[in-house]
Amino acid sequence: MTAVVDNPATTAGTLRDGAFGHARALVCRECKHEVELGPHYACPECFGPLEVAYDFPAVTREEIAAGPANIWRYKALLPVPSDIEQSPNMEPGFTRLLKAHNLGRELGIDNLWVKDDSTNPTNSFKDRVVACALSAARELDAKVFACPSTGNLANAVAAAGARAGIKTVVFIPSNLEKPKQVNSAVYTDKLVAVNGNYDDVNKLASEIAGEEEGWAFVNVNVRPFYAEGSKTLGYEIAEQLGWRLPDQIVIPVASGSQLTKVDKAFQELIKLGLVEDKPYKVYGAQATGCSPVSVAYKAGVDAIRPVKPDTIAKSLAIGNPADGIYVLDVCRRTGGAVEDITDDEVRDGIVLLARTEGIFTETAGGTTVGVLKKLVESGQLDTSLETVVINTGHGLKTLDAVADRVSAAATIEPTYSAFTAANLV
Amino acid sequence: MTAVVDNPATTAGTLRDGAFGHARALVCRECKHEVELGPHYACPECFGPLEVAYDFPAVTREEIAAGPANIWRYKALLPVPSDIEQSPNMEPGFTRLLKAHNLGRELGIDNLWVKDDSTNPTNSFKDRVVACALSAARELDAKVFACPSTGNLANAVAAAGARAGIKTVVFIPSNLEKPKQVNSAVYTDKLVAVNGNYDDVNKLASEIAGEEEGWAFVNVNVRPFYAEGSKTLGYEIAEQLGWRLPDQIVIPVASGSQLTKVDKAFQELIKLGLVEDKPYKVYGAQATGCSPVSVAYKAGVDAIRPVKPDTIAKSLAIGNPADGIYVLDVCRRTGGAVEDITDDEVRDGIVLLARTEGIFTETAGGTTVGVLKKLVESGQLDTSLETVVINTGHGLKTLDAVADRVSAAATIEPTYSAFTAANLV
Repeated sequence: MTAVVDNPATTAGTLRDGAFGHARALVCRECKHEVELGPHYACPECFGPLEVAYDFPAVTREEIAAGPANIWRYKALLPVPSDIEQSPNMEPGFTRLLKAHNLGRELGIDNLWVKDDSTNPTNSFKDRVVACALSAARELDAKVFACPSTGNLANAVAAAGARAGIKTVVFIPSNLEKPKQVNSAVYTDKLVAVNGNYDDVNKLASEIAGEEEGWAFVNVNVRPFYAEGSKTLGYEIAEQLGWRLPDQIVIPVASGSQLTKVDKAFQELIKLGLVEDKPYKVYGAQATGCSPVSVAYKAGVDAIRPVKPDTIAKSLAIGNPADGIYVLDVCRRTGGAVEDITDDEVRDGIVLLARTEGIFTETAGGTTVGVLKKLVESGQLDTSLETVVINTGHGLKTLDAVADRVSAAATIEPTYSAFTAANLV
Repeated sequence: MTAVVDNPATTAGTLRDGAFGHARALVCRECKHEVELGPHYACPECFGPLEVAYDFPAVTREEIAAGPANIWRYKALLPVPSDIEQSPNMEPGFTRLLKAHNLGRELGIDNLWVKDDSTNPTNSFKDRVVACALSAARELDAKVFACPSTGNLANAVAAAGARAGIKTVVFIPSNLEKPKQVNSAVYTDKLVAVNGNYDDVNKLASEIAGEEEGWAFVNVNVRPFYAEGSKTLGYEIAEQLGWRLPDQIVIPVASGSQLTKVDKAFQELIKLGLVEDKPYKVYGAQATGCSPVSVAYKAGVDAIRPVKPDTIAKSLAIGNPADGIYVLDVCRRTGGAVEDITDDEVRDGIVLLARTEGIFTETAGGTTVGVLKKLVESGQLDTSLETVVINTGHGLKTLDAVADRVSAAATIEPTYSAFTAANLV
């Protein structure tokens, strides 16, 4: 059996013109070796990670603004065909950038914004990356759309696959809580429970990707295309600020891909002349129970030492983050930092964001808001500069994290006298 | 103590110019008596419901398209001030209108769209109405923002109040499931549990609204302003179709307000010359366990006989719908219908929408999709005409409804041989 990843010939002959838009090639991040566009993710020379490189056309702000209110307004900057809107997809993105007056006041930051990605179709930023992976799967004529995941990615893949009408298989650990299973099983009749932990599920997925023909695993063999979707977070923030880069941005770190792609997006906007070149600082946020990048940052070293995750921030619990070293590069180059907080501070961060801005975030967002607070308190973040914090997912997915922390203020009888006696306001 | 509702003088003197935009007055829907703009909801002449009337300016498609990607693009058509975007609010709306190729094929409808309001900030259409109520509360200088609710409305009010920085009190039945309590308590420290059912909570709210000064209960004393928010669903559908009305639209019926406001929106767009005048049919959807409007429609009578709700579609479970008679008017006038389905069909509707379009809806949306199916099967809906179905909320809020209906297809060991043996694809 021929693996998609090892056999460009299975697709190269059938690729249509412009299948990947203005993408030129896949380029190794380490040795810069170039590989033709296809289902490849590791450099054949040095096994380094491959990334999409482009020959961008001239793009104007007006052209972008005339596009749809979703990520396809930036299609000229993504590895997707120019008719991408015509193919059924989840139409994610162009989520709210909210001025956070109350949270800013609470933390002493003059000019703070929250980029709220919890309002994406399946309530996390994963809809962005999965939409780009789906386009690649379609152009490569994949027969099956798949992923291993414990949460947000499973939801996004199952939903996008259903809407696209492509056979979709989602692998999860069999001990995953029932509500989380329902939130993926509702979309697909091919949810596969695997007896093992997430690492076991992930290994199985890689094995299937290597053995079976025509499978597109979003975060394995089409990962270079998938990862580009995160750039749209950076594009949107700049556009929504009025085509301007923020001074500081705080981003959660799981694999680290999102943080590096937001930086890539900012750099592209500068090169394209869509925003003015200016310094900006990028900060990474981790939970202490899974903080290999933060540990390396603080130790001043380049190597990431893998850890066994132990944190309630499950969507950030990647013990051996693939892009960790690139996160260190970006944060050090821009003058930012990487910081981590305890699970209790994660819970505090969730409640703080909800009470100040009416945004209910999951544990990953609690981590990011909590780290923002810690960065201010420790003097690592300049409170006089314009700052953006990213919320990547919805609190309805991790309700248990705050179930013991918030409750009714009072329980009263249904009478006006009981109400006044309770002295509530 | 002076009740807000009975004392226009508490606010009339302090209303700023344009506090309610181009709204002219509150007009009784029954006797057409006019009342000045303020915290009034019942006609002083006949006790009929009051509705906002306008002196609209000329509005162009271009002006609207140049507005923000939320409901405030239609601010000229809402009872809100022209600087509404400057006041912290949830910025809801401009949700996706998705071409439903797969669902259309499944049901035999040539040209079907889903308006997906589950991606609003708190994951239901309630963010639209609450945003308008919040504006009214602010302009009327209310001290407290409040509602009685068991679900979606509680979430929307608690979140909007937090972001606006106004004291916010949400009343719920004390036996409400803990996850639903958390989803409101996370936003406010003034969640009040009331020993009683929803009717008891509602009665208490009305009593407080009548006794306390400066309370804005979104669905009681500022209800006329609140209800106008639903018009934005109609505006968006027309704009997203390319400034065209659909031929048929299917809308869930709880109080019935949303359905009547979508019709009002279509009529306004015609009068303003923003869309071409054409016939359209409006259909109402109810669950059989709470179907007083459907029963009246089928019996050919005008009076709604109240029922005691018994359905899993809790967000539609209003046994004595305030706008039920107006729903009958609209559906009969336009040549539509009102239909109802069983709870099992509601569950089927949820899974059908998820599996075909990747949209996970709550029980209300399952009801609407299920009714759409029934309307086709019974020949009440023309499958050759362009049809829109509204999804009003997110399935994460009513997970239990489908928890027994969807599950993993298989449980396997974490080996490639176990995978191939399972013969999954």
